[in-house]
Amino acid sequence: MKQLGVMDKGFLIAERREMPMHVGGLSLYTLPEGVNEQAFLADLAQNMRSADTLLPPFGDRLKTGPLGMAGAAYWEPDPALDMEYHVRHSALPRPGRYRELFTLVSRLHGTLLERSRPLWEMHLIEGLGNRQFAVYTKTHHAAVDGARSIHVSRCMLSSDPNFIREDSPLSLRAWEAYKVGLGLGKRPEYSDSELRTVTDMIKSSLDSSTSLFNAVKGFTRAWAGRGDNLYLPHLKVPRSSLNTSIDGARRFVAQSWPFVRIRAVAKAFDGTFNDAVLAMCAGALRQYLQLHAELPDESLKAMVPVSLRKEGDVDAGNAVAAISADLATNIADPGKRFRAIQASVQAGKEYYRGMTHKELELFTLLMQTPSLLLQPMGLMSKLPPYNTVISNVPGIRQTMYWNGARMDGNYPLSIVTDGISMNITLVTYDQNVDFGIIACRRSVPQVQRMIDYMEDALVELEDAAGLKPKPGKKAAAKRVARPAARSASKPATRSKKKATPKAKTNPKSKAGKKAAGRAAAKPKARAKTKPRS
Amino acid sequence: MKQLGVMDKGFLIAERREMPMHVGGLSLYTLPEGVNEQAFLADLAQNMRSADTLLPPFGDRLKTGPLGMAGAAYWEPDPALDMEYHVRHSALPRPGRYRELFTLVSRLHGTLLERSRPLWEMHLIEGLGNRQFAVYTKTHHAAVDGARSIHVSRCMLSSDPNFIREDSPLSLRAWEAYKVGLGLGKRPEYSDSELRTVTDMIKSSLDSSTSLFNAVKGFTRAWAGRGDNLYLPHLKVPRSSLNTSIDGARRFVAQSWPFVRIRAVAKAFDGTFNDAVLAMCAGALRQYLQLHAELPDESLKAMVPVSLRKEGDVDAGNAVAAISADLATNIADPGKRFRAIQASVQAGKEYYRGMTHKELELFTLLMQTPSLLLQPMGLMSKLPPYNTVISNVPGIRQTMYWNGARMDGNYPLSIVTDGISMNITLVTYDQNVDFGIIACRRSVPQVQRMIDYMEDALVELEDAAGLKPKPGKKAAAKRVARPAARSASKPATRSKKKATPKAKTNPKSKAGKKAAGRAAAKPKARAKTKPRS
Repeated sequence: MKQLGVMDKGFLIAERREMPMHVGGLSLYTLPEGVNEQAFLADLAQNMRSADTLLPPFGDRLKTGPLGMAGAAYWEPDPALDMEYHVRHSALPRPGRYRELFTLVSRLHGTLLERSRPLWEMHLIEGLGNRQFAVYTKTHHAAVDGARSIHVSRCMLSSDPNFIREDSPLSLRAWEAYKVGLGLGKRPEYSDSELRTVTDMIKSSLDSSTSLFNAVKGFTRAWAGRGDNLYLPHLKVPRSSLNTSIDGARRFVAQSWPFVRIRAVAKAFDGTFNDAVLAMCAGALRQYLQLHAELPDESLKAMVPVSLRKEGDVDAGNAVAAISADLATNIADPGKRFRAIQASVQAGKEYYRGMTHKELELFTLLMQTPSLLLQPMGLMSKLPPYNTVISNVPGIRQTMYWNGARMDGNYPLSIVTDGISMNITLVTYDQNVDFGIIACRRSVPQVQRMIDYMEDALVELEDAAGLKPKPGKKAAAKRVARPAARSASKPATRSKKKATPKAKTNPKSKAGKKAAGRAAAKPKARAKTKPRS
Repeated sequence: MKQLGVMDKGFLIAERREMPMHVGGLSLYTLPEGVNEQAFLADLAQNMRSADTLLPPFGDRLKTGPLGMAGAAYWEPDPALDMEYHVRHSALPRPGRYRELFTLVSRLHGTLLERSRPLWEMHLIEGLGNRQFAVYTKTHHAAVDGARSIHVSRCMLSSDPNFIREDSPLSLRAWEAYKVGLGLGKRPEYSDSELRTVTDMIKSSLDSSTSLFNAVKGFTRAWAGRGDNLYLPHLKVPRSSLNTSIDGARRFVAQSWPFVRIRAVAKAFDGTFNDAVLAMCAGALRQYLQLHAELPDESLKAMVPVSLRKEGDVDAGNAVAAISADLATNIADPGKRFRAIQASVQAGKEYYRGMTHKELELFTLLMQTPSLLLQPMGLMSKLPPYNTVISNVPGIRQTMYWNGARMDGNYPLSIVTDGISMNITLVTYDQNVDFGIIACRRSVPQVQRMIDYMEDALVELEDAAGLKPKPGKKAAAKRVARPAARSASKPATRSKKKATPKAKTNPKSKAGKKAAGRAAAKPKARAKTKPRS
């Protein structure tokens, strides 16, 4: 039995009906030529269910003592593992567009996992047109973080379209084979060496309250992310509709952008890929709040998780550090905004560079702790430690196949909490960057507009960087356009826009913003002046 | 704002992720001729969503004070009612049999409603063959009991296939029109006169602890249901696999039987329709436990709810009394078993006859209270107050239509709790009796077999009563056969069996039972000797 670390337990303790603590993933696949969809999906489901020994903790359930979650918690094998329960077959109502897919996945993501069973579900979803099918997976954050999820899906996938995996991707055998393939060799699962993983070190840190107290004193001064702002957390974080109490229902949207577009912006500004992603999201958030007439004077802050996983260490559970990035949403000029974000992120990274390994982990703990402490007191919506989460998960930079089915995209669904009712997570895959945005259905009812605003923000950055559209990317753009709810009904919209220089200079968008300024009190009316709605 | 009664609040307090406290209904419809399924379902959804003022509490959410559920709780209008959230469109994966439908509905029934919104959901389900569609509704027991649910669905329906209801069936206007149609006139919703409803009278009874104490003393002696057994509750209730702790996952099966078959058995034994239903269920439970080698020496006890609603009073919320019926599962002879059940039910009713109105309500409270008191202590699985619940909800005895779509069946999904992991609820509809059996997925993994065992039990009773099959019922039988998971793949099985005299005398079943006796230690192997599996 493997004991849960303090942080993993924190996700279980903080969980409520209105605030599930699972992460999800939505993958799109194209069926191999010539196969029958029904038989192919049935085979995939059968293969997933066929594991005899599962990769921990996929066959394990929670075990607590008389104190419940207040005492120690362990993973123990489920004595009556019911794979039919975990691997499910679902379908979309007609017309089976991405809109219907996002609706279904929003619902599935908005219900709690069952704690008396292993904390995961997998849904094979039929009913999309175009010979595509979808897979939605749902895993408790206490069991596995986003990065490990990626590893598990990698284990399912192959770059060889003809490769058929005999073992269930959830089997320990497939996992060991996958690790051998990575050149990592076979390691015992949950060995003593894992005592050095971050979650356990955090636990041992917690035993010494003095060191924790000093760490709090020292590090909270750096919380705001900028070296020159030595304030406590929460004080510099503005309020917005993104920072209210949440309910249990979700809205999910997803979209892909070509990796080269975002990287070109990064290069033009001499920044990182992640800086460009943050700038794109910042521009979209600025537009969203502006059109809802609630752009705060203070800049929005984003929690930006960073993996602490060492290269090659694929067995660690949750190993995530975080910086608090200033999104510079109070700066109108996109180029200046980019540079302000870049400076903030660099300041955040400086702190990591000056820290010992142990301090680094403590810092991570502190970034997570406010939510866990504030949630039960109902203060998260009053004192949000940041406005949103923007999480960049490294993915696979080539086309992958699951038993011959080509993976077309791979969109993460993360967690929203009281006070942070929208989360943007992205995965690089093949030639694209796949964004998944999850939000509280009540607090952020128009989250689907973020997809358009992110495109606007990217175009703005391209303009500011003086980038010209490159020829020969129409094919990629077409594929990228698929997952948007809006583009599902008119899939040419985005690619057309991206392909024409006129759309790139985006004059309509500026007009739209002016109109927005004139009608600031009526978000709905304003939205109608937007060029593309 | 309407205050919740003690019993309604009890359902909210007792609720956990593993023990949702909502009731459900699954209805099957046949599309009107010539309509397009997609457009028809979209219209139905639009119509449901179009209510401006909703029948309480369908537009209301829970409101509690600083004490939470420990203090007073009220229904208050949801200020941001989101009908798209409540009325949903879903689909079945192919081949879209009843098996796939039951799987989907089991999943939907196994997740918690969202407490920050009105406590109901409605799912329009496409993907069944044969021009059928399904509707699954889910309503919290704190908001509405089974009988009121039936009234609400009646309000949706018309015996006129050409009638189109303009108002949403959930609108207050449609509800008032429905009540006028019943000749009840218009009554103010949640008026002072409702103080006389049962839930509120129970609350006032609770204020007098002396009278409650005496009532407990007096009535618990009668708990066992038989006049000659003056024991405390729980003492005479045997243990079985139906009486363990439950988890949050469900299994649901449904089946219809012709009303005339069950009534003929009742008449032959000079009993009530309900006696015959109980005898049918008792025979099936006996067979189930026998084949699982765990038939207890003591007879199983069933809680049999009885509506306390006065004729014409359709506005009362929860108004359910209960008797504890001895199912005589320790009696092998079906005729003797029927008479033992009948005697037990009559004894239970005798108590009601001798009681004042107030005592009646106290009795009801006592029947409900053990579950509410024992649940938090985790004792329900150790001291089940009864083994199962068999609930007979009066329905409509004619063919009904929803905007032209013919209702083919109407199957209830009730609640299971720790200690009572299977619930059988039935509704009379048209020429049929529609049974819905809901069970904990882990405790009762083979609940679908109950459908076959109930047919066996009915045949046994028919044999014991010396009943001969009547000619000319093949059409009814065919329609009845539709909803069974098994008969979905081979729909002729049951109707063939019922139509042939040979099947009616059921010699195979007796052979099966002998075989079962020989191999009592291996339920799976034994099941294979069953004639029809």
